[in-house]
Amino acid sequence: MIEGDGTTSPSLRSWVDVPAGSDFPIQNLPYGVFTRGNEWHLGVAIGESILDLNSAARAGFFDAYAFRDTLLQPALNHVLASGKAAWTALRARVSALLEAGNREIADRGLVDFVLVKQANVVMQMPFVVRNYVDFYSSLEHATNMGKILRPGGEALLPNWRYVPIGYHGRAGTVVVDGTPIARPCGQARPSESAPPSYGPTKALDIELETGFVTGGPTPFGTPLPIASAEDTIFGMVLVNDWSARDIQSWEYQPLGPFLGKSFATSISAWVVSLDALAPFRIDGPSQDPPPLEYLRRPRPFTFDIALAVELRTAAMRRAAEIARSNFKYLYWDMAQQLAHAASNGASVEPGDLYASGTISGPVQGSYGSLMELTWRGARPLKLPSGEERRWLEDGDTVTLRGWCERDGAARIGFGSVSGTISPARCSA
Amino acid sequence: MIEGDGTTSPSLRSWVDVPAGSDFPIQNLPYGVFTRGNEWHLGVAIGESILDLNSAARAGFFDAYAFRDTLLQPALNHVLASGKAAWTALRARVSALLEAGNREIADRGLVDFVLVKQANVVMQMPFVVRNYVDFYSSLEHATNMGKILRPGGEALLPNWRYVPIGYHGRAGTVVVDGTPIARPCGQARPSESAPPSYGPTKALDIELETGFVTGGPTPFGTPLPIASAEDTIFGMVLVNDWSARDIQSWEYQPLGPFLGKSFATSISAWVVSLDALAPFRIDGPSQDPPPLEYLRRPRPFTFDIALAVELRTAAMRRAAEIARSNFKYLYWDMAQQLAHAASNGASVEPGDLYASGTISGPVQGSYGSLMELTWRGARPLKLPSGEERRWLEDGDTVTLRGWCERDGAARIGFGSVSGTISPARCSA
Repeated sequence: MIEGDGTTSPSLRSWVDVPAGSDFPIQNLPYGVFTRGNEWHLGVAIGESILDLNSAARAGFFDAYAFRDTLLQPALNHVLASGKAAWTALRARVSALLEAGNREIADRGLVDFVLVKQANVVMQMPFVVRNYVDFYSSLEHATNMGKILRPGGEALLPNWRYVPIGYHGRAGTVVVDGTPIARPCGQARPSESAPPSYGPTKALDIELETGFVTGGPTPFGTPLPIASAEDTIFGMVLVNDWSARDIQSWEYQPLGPFLGKSFATSISAWVVSLDALAPFRIDGPSQDPPPLEYLRRPRPFTFDIALAVELRTAAMRRAAEIARSNFKYLYWDMAQQLAHAASNGASVEPGDLYASGTISGPVQGSYGSLMELTWRGARPLKLPSGEERRWLEDGDTVTLRGWCERDGAARIGFGSVSGTISPARCSA
Repeated sequence: MIEGDGTTSPSLRSWVDVPAGSDFPIQNLPYGVFTRGNEWHLGVAIGESILDLNSAARAGFFDAYAFRDTLLQPALNHVLASGKAAWTALRARVSALLEAGNREIADRGLVDFVLVKQANVVMQMPFVVRNYVDFYSSLEHATNMGKILRPGGEALLPNWRYVPIGYHGRAGTVVVDGTPIARPCGQARPSESAPPSYGPTKALDIELETGFVTGGPTPFGTPLPIASAEDTIFGMVLVNDWSARDIQSWEYQPLGPFLGKSFATSISAWVVSLDALAPFRIDGPSQDPPPLEYLRRPRPFTFDIALAVELRTAAMRRAAEIARSNFKYLYWDMAQQLAHAASNGASVEPGDLYASGTISGPVQGSYGSLMELTWRGARPLKLPSGEERRWLEDGDTVTLRGWCERDGAARIGFGSVSGTISPARCSA
C-alpha cells in the first residue's frame, strides 16, 4: 500500500517476481516507454518485467480514473501534464495492482497480456523533451573546471554562489539508453599559431549527471515560487552529457556551449518518481552566502543517490568502474534549479528536462568527467586491460548507474544509461 | 502560375482583393495558424484575407495531393515534415486556387467558407518550436557588443570569423506577434561592491532579428552538408529576441545567456517561404578569411529584406521608427548557419527555429538593439513625444517590420511582430 506521502512500506512485496538486488522492486515503479509491435506503450518496471500501462488501461484496469487516457499515449508527456494529484493516484493504483495478494489481473487471465519481459522489448525515449536545460550545480566540478581552464585565476567565478548557473541545450538530440553515439565532428583550434580546422573531435568526454522531468505548464510570464517547485517535479533520470572538449573550448566565447554538447545527450529509459526516492531524502549542503529569498526552500531537498561511471573498451570483456559519486554532493538542489529557471516568468512545461551538470565529489575518484579524472589528459586513466584513456576512443562503451540503498529501505535503482562510440561521419 | 523555381510572375493577380502596398500579394502566400471557433487552422495570407487551408482541404480542394492531411493539423509541423517537393506542390496549388480566373472555389459557392478576414481572427503560433537556436551573425552587432562590453580589448573575438557563433534558447517561450511581454525579474549585480539582488530588470531591450524554420528530420549522427541546407529551409519569420541586459551580464559567464533571454522571444505570425523571397536574392558579403570547406556554399545566399524597429510609448499616439536595418548585412548566411548547427551530427527537425542574431547595419540608425542605439544608455533615444528611452519602460510597444521591394517585382512583406511591456510579476 502507498502511504499518504506517496512512499511504500519497505516490507511490501509484489506477486511479480523481483530478484534480490533488483533496481525495480514494488517500492520503485519507474515509468518508461517500450515498443510493442508497431506501437510505443507506457510501462512501469517491476523486477525484470514491465507492466504495460497501455494494455492494462485498455483492459479496463484504470477505468475509474480521469487520467486513464493519458496512459494510451506513446510518451509520458500527457501523464506529466496531468499533475501531482494524478501522479499520486496513478502510483497508488499501479502499486495496488502489483502487490502480493491482488488478483485483479490474474483472475481475468491477463497476466501475459499486461506483463512483458524487459529482455524482450526495446526501450524508447520516455517523453518528448520540450525544453532542455543543463545546470552547473556541483561546486567541486565548477571549481575543477576553473582550475583547469583558468589556471592562476579565481577557480570559481563570482556569480556561482549566487546563481544556479545553467544554459539551454538541444532538446532534439536527447536520446535513450543504448543509442550509439557517433563521434562528433566540429571546428577546433588546437594551436593558436594555426587556423582552426573541421574534423572528428579528439577530446570526447562524458559528464555524469542526473536530470529531473517536470509537469506543468505554469503560466507564461509568472515565476514559479520555490515552494511550488517540488510538486512540479515528476521524477528523475540518469543523464550522460557527452561533450567534445576541443570543439567546446574554441566555440564557447561569448555565448556558451553549443556544438560541443548538442550532438547527443543520453538519458536512462526509466523515470524514477520523487515519491519512490522519498525514503532517501537527506539534508543538502549548507550554502554560504545564504541564497537570495526566491531560492530559499521550505525544507532541505536532496537525496542520497550513489552514482557510478563504468567504461568498457572494445578490448575489455568486463566494464571497469572509473568513478563513483553521489547526487548529494550537488550544491544547488532541484527546487532551487527549477525556481531559478522560472524566476524570470519562463513557463515550465510537461516534458522539460533539467539536468544537474556534472556531479563531482570531493576526491579524485569521485569526479564525473574525464576532463577532471585525467586533469585534461595530463593523468591518463589506467584500465584493467592495460589500456590508457585520456578521452574516449571509438568502440568504448560508457555506462552510468544510479541507485539508493540503506538499511530498512528497499533498494531504488535507476537502471543504467549506456552509449557506445561509433566512428565519426564528418561533413564532406 | 508558379515557375519551376517556385517563383511567381510579378504580373499575376488574385481574384481576392489585394490593396496596393499589401505585404501579402499572390506572389507571397505566407503560412500561419489562426483560431476558427475552437480550432486552430492553417492558413495562407492573401491581401487582407486568409485562405483557410483546413477548410479548403476538407472541402476537397487538395484531394489529389499526398500532403492533404498535413493541412488539417493545428500547426505547420506536419507540413514542414513533408519536405521540399511537397512544399513546392502546396505553393503551386494554393497559387492556382487564388489566381484571377480560377473559379474552383467560387463555382462551388465556398468563397465565404474558405476565406476569412484577417481582422476577424486571432493568430496563433504558426508551428511548435522544436529546437530553438539563436545565432550572432552580424559583424557590426558582434563588434558593437565587444566595444561596449570589453572596452579596450579586441572588439571581435578570435573565433568569430571562423565559427557562426550561436547558442540554444528556450523553445517553449517563443510566442506569436501580439503576445504581451511581462517585464522579467531576475538576479542582477549593478555594483561590484554590493551583493546581487532579485527584482524587475532595469535594462529591458529588444533584438531585431529574423529566423528560419526547417523541415527534416535529418538523421541523428550525420551532418547535413551545406549543399543540402537550403532545401531544408522552409521559410522565414521576424524575431524579436527580448533581452534583459542586467540579468544577462551577471549570469552569462561561463555558459552563456540563460534567463536574460529565456523569458520571451516573439515571432511574426506569417512564415514567408524562400520561394516567395527568391526575386530578392542577392550576393552575400565577402568573407575573410574564407570559410572552412564545410561552410562553403554552392552559391551566394542572402536576400535584400528591409527591416525596421518602431517604438510607441503609452504617451504616443503613433509609433516612431527608431532603427532601419537590412537582412543583407549579415555576415553568415542561413545555409552556413544551418550547416554549422548540424556539422556535429545534430539532427535538424521539423519546427526548428534558427534566429539570425541582432541584425545591425554599419551606421548608428541601423543598429538592431537599444544596447547599441543608446550605447548602453549613454546616448538616450529622443522620441517625437519628447520622452527619452535608454531601455524599455512598462507600456512601451515595440514593433518589428520586414519587407522586400524593388522595381519589377511584387512587394513581399512579413507583416510585423509586436509586443507591449506589462509590469513585472516577481517571485515573492
